[in-house]
Amino acid sequence: MQQIESVKEFGGFLNRYTHQSAVNNCEMTFSVYLPPQAETGPVPALYFLSGLTCTDDNARTKAGAQRYAAEHGIAIVFPDTSPRGDDIADEPERYDLGKGAGFYVNATQAPYSPNYHMYDYVTQELPALLEAELPLMAGVKSVTGHSMGGHGALICALKNPDAYRSVSAFAPICNPVNCGWGKGCFGAYLGDDESTWAEYDATELVKSGARVENILIDSGLADEFYDEGQLLPENLKAACETAGQPLELRLQDGYDHSYHFISTFIGEHIAYHAEAMKAA
Amino acid sequence: MQQIESVKEFGGFLNRYTHQSAVNNCEMTFSVYLPPQAETGPVPALYFLSGLTCTDDNARTKAGAQRYAAEHGIAIVFPDTSPRGDDIADEPERYDLGKGAGFYVNATQAPYSPNYHMYDYVTQELPALLEAELPLMAGVKSVTGHSMGGHGALICALKNPDAYRSVSAFAPICNPVNCGWGKGCFGAYLGDDESTWAEYDATELVKSGARVENILIDSGLADEFYDEGQLLPENLKAACETAGQPLELRLQDGYDHSYHFISTFIGEHIAYHAEAMKAA
Repeated sequence: MQQIESVKEFGGFLNRYTHQSAVNNCEMTFSVYLPPQAETGPVPALYFLSGLTCTDDNARTKAGAQRYAAEHGIAIVFPDTSPRGDDIADEPERYDLGKGAGFYVNATQAPYSPNYHMYDYVTQELPALLEAELPLMAGVKSVTGHSMGGHGALICALKNPDAYRSVSAFAPICNPVNCGWGKGCFGAYLGDDESTWAEYDATELVKSGARVENILIDSGLADEFYDEGQLLPENLKAACETAGQPLELRLQDGYDHSYHFISTFIGEHIAYHAEAMKAA
Repeated sequence: MQQIESVKEFGGFLNRYTHQSAVNNCEMTFSVYLPPQAETGPVPALYFLSGLTCTDDNARTKAGAQRYAAEHGIAIVFPDTSPRGDDIADEPERYDLGKGAGFYVNATQAPYSPNYHMYDYVTQELPALLEAELPLMAGVKSVTGHSMGGHGALICALKNPDAYRSVSAFAPICNPVNCGWGKGCFGAYLGDDESTWAEYDATELVKSGARVENILIDSGLADEFYDEGQLLPENLKAACETAGQPLELRLQDGYDHSYHFISTFIGEHIAYHAEAMKAA
């Protein structure tokens, strides 16, 4: 991996890197905030998975996370949301499919299957690379995300409960097999056989027996995508109640889907993850 | 004024408005963060003047100020950086003159003089409007800003020491009559007679006897524009030392000119202004 940018912030460094991804078969860009504590020893890492249309830049610029990461001494990893490049399959007229919309799944369908392996990328390739190359504690990581990335965070943890110390999400897509965004992408990436979709759906995973210690979710009640039925937290809540899966679902009055909503609650999420990772 | 957007953040509201500016003779857009405390009574206001190329959106999205404003119970006003509109004079091929580069002066030269009155706008028209229309404490305001807006903050306070309770700046242009950015804009806005420039130059104002209680400045030593000689904090420092003007100039090792730098120190600036405004 090659460092292409380094900006000092809160005593640490917000770095940006490129590398050749084996699983996505293209060059990928990502950012990592290393807190001041990383200068004297390895630190735990929180992965922040971003939403539709985002790159690695949105959350690092707008979520306000770095202040809290510096306070708690944890790194934050900001992956991109899809493979990138001129040769990568895309639907340029759609913001919710193709580039910027990888949905953190491994695509099995042409033309996406050669490159769209974001699930393997964020759960396997990127952590292995970063734990080898940066002062991160081996195997001590947690995951959060926003919207499509909140969906990503939930499935990463539910499918790998031993790999993540904690999971949270901001306004996540909770049941993609039952919402427009999810159906559009899962059909294109995974094919028409809907039985293959469930392994990337948080609500369906909980129904099938997947378990994590706890799930923390903040979602705004003034979120237009909640109103549109894209997020469906009530479906995840019902599945968790039936299954006995602990879920702390906080429906926040008056908050929308924006980074202003994320910034309001990111401090509590980072404190939550820091506690879990430091208890390790 | 007309409210065109309202987003909940840290328990308060980040609102955006348009209005017809009399001094700029065009429609202007600005944003105001009203903290939760504004629901029960008027609050002090900190004006944040942004830098070259910015609109009212940059600082509200990237500076991380709202968290601290909510903690301290102060509003933050984010004006635009120039008049806007199809009929407004501009130099589209230049980022440092015309739209996005009002420099917080009152232009006297064609084609800018009909609209570019940003000094009157931020010191007079906007505060009068907001104190009439929003729950802001009459006459209790402070000012800060970044780069070109740091220059703006310094001159607003130095020229109106009784109107502002405190002033600070991030990487301000301290001596525009002696740097490329300042010369380019002052010539275009104020004409070739350089004797007219000094009344909008913080360093020259201090030399001429302007005084405020204190000036707080953070500026990064890894700032490319500092290296280019656009900021010249050393000139302001020398003028303040000669004049006996208190100046807290903090040259921050390793920090650049970006909003990541601002976000690192905005909390200390807001605490500084909140203390000054609450002591009123």
